[in-house]
Amino acid sequence: MITVDAVPYPYQFDRRHTALMVIDMQRDFIEAGGFGSMLGNDVRPLARIVPTVAQLLTLARAQRMWVVHTRESHLPDLSDCPPAKRRRGNPALAIGDAGPMGRILVRGAPGNQILPLLAPLDGELVSRHGSDVVGCAQPSERSARRIAQPIPSVLASDATPRCASMASADRQMIGDATLVIDKPGKGAFHATDLHAQLQARGITHLLFAGVTTEVCVQTSMREANDRGYESLIVEDACASYFRAFHLATLAMLTAQGGIVGWKAPLALLQAAFKKTAGESA
Amino acid sequence: MITVDAVPYPYQFDRRHTALMVIDMQRDFIEAGGFGSMLGNDVRPLARIVPTVAQLLTLARAQRMWVVHTRESHLPDLSDCPPAKRRRGNPALAIGDAGPMGRILVRGAPGNQILPLLAPLDGELVSRHGSDVVGCAQPSERSARRIAQPIPSVLASDATPRCASMASADRQMIGDATLVIDKPGKGAFHATDLHAQLQARGITHLLFAGVTTEVCVQTSMREANDRGYESLIVEDACASYFRAFHLATLAMLTAQGGIVGWKAPLALLQAAFKKTAGESA
Repeated sequence: MITVDAVPYPYQFDRRHTALMVIDMQRDFIEAGGFGSMLGNDVRPLARIVPTVAQLLTLARAQRMWVVHTRESHLPDLSDCPPAKRRRGNPALAIGDAGPMGRILVRGAPGNQILPLLAPLDGELVSRHGSDVVGCAQPSERSARRIAQPIPSVLASDATPRCASMASADRQMIGDATLVIDKPGKGAFHATDLHAQLQARGITHLLFAGVTTEVCVQTSMREANDRGYESLIVEDACASYFRAFHLATLAMLTAQGGIVGWKAPLALLQAAFKKTAGESA
Repeated sequence: MITVDAVPYPYQFDRRHTALMVIDMQRDFIEAGGFGSMLGNDVRPLARIVPTVAQLLTLARAQRMWVVHTRESHLPDLSDCPPAKRRRGNPALAIGDAGPMGRILVRGAPGNQILPLLAPLDGELVSRHGSDVVGCAQPSERSARRIAQPIPSVLASDATPRCASMASADRQMIGDATLVIDKPGKGAFHATDLHAQLQARGITHLLFAGVTTEVCVQTSMREANDRGYESLIVEDACASYFRAFHLATLAMLTAQGGIVGWKAPLALLQAAFKKTAGESA
């Protein structure tokens, strides 16, 4: 059991039953020249957390914890995009239109991909919303991922396709896998199979990172809370275009005895793992 | 079509396809001497919105709009309460324990009821989470409602049980009905049949009121947004124990072109109805 010196009180978890949720670290939201910056947002606060999220991923992989990446994305025919979402804000460029990095929020578009530095490794599992199918990444996605700089980890790919052995690995809960959830909403649970995937793996605890704090991270953490997960938001591994919203969200989530969950910076999470390793050595 | 001079831009809706969502205006959260105040919260900011919510209810009923009341509540055996929710904050008194107004957050307890001044009228529809059954209020709930002071409205009860005629009325979308949703989460959509109920009635637009702004109102509005509803939060008909959270939530929900929806005070909603009435007169 790992104990983090979190707010509002110590957060305890078993890494075999804990997943790291990396929310929407997508090029269009974070890179200069993407859709987010085209809308006039200052993307630098988001770009600034990338090294922290990378460290968190390295930690999770080294600890053989499950990792879930989410992407806010829609099918090319936009059949999973509510009309209300597409017209909201009367945008000059709407979801599905040609944006600076391909079609905006459409699967397969370059801007819709996870930042290369944080991308899942080649051959890792992909889960699709609206479907129960879990399988290897599709060829087109595999090639998109080849541009990724894999982070050194226990997951370094080998000659054998990893997918072939995943079914049994899942059940052994050895945790050396990554899920990618394509989600049509702000929340990662809505209209996806995330809850079923987590339940199937015995996950009870979630660590949240990603962007933006008050939109997709908060929405997903609130959904997780209603579903009975114990969640901690890694505060310096999340960011918003608006600093005040980031801070207000952290305060709201953890108020009233942790009404939605806990918060802690990465350093305290790392310290907790180190302490446990020391005790068991 | 009604047009409200809302933030961030005008909000348009057809009252036949719009429901008023009154979130968790329950005695235990709002009355002095209830569970909320027992936890040390100052309930006065919540009590202060009651007349505004009452006016909003009167308006919605006069306009023959659908009204949905929600209650955060659990089954007496707590089978719908995630263990993580019950133990969160290591409370001295947990959900299901005997509180100042009966068992905390348990259906049927006096504290779990909607404030008498805002209560649904005798004989109105009740919908239960975890079930597709829609029917008349149970006798025990009916007696609880007898203490209510009905607000003068088009819904004044008559000798004929209203339930008997609801099925056809539903389909005619005449809108003279109220749903009560008992929800086990903070969000009104999670583990309830709310979405199905709204879809069955052709509802596309939601007006939000209730408590608390940053917890159950916000969570429900974010769920609604992901499901394709166009939502407006009636800002002076919502409240929080924490004024800063109330204000931050209003700002977050309406930022980035109304990323979750719109906000407006009751007065602007009333003015919009008056303007439309004048134009059609």
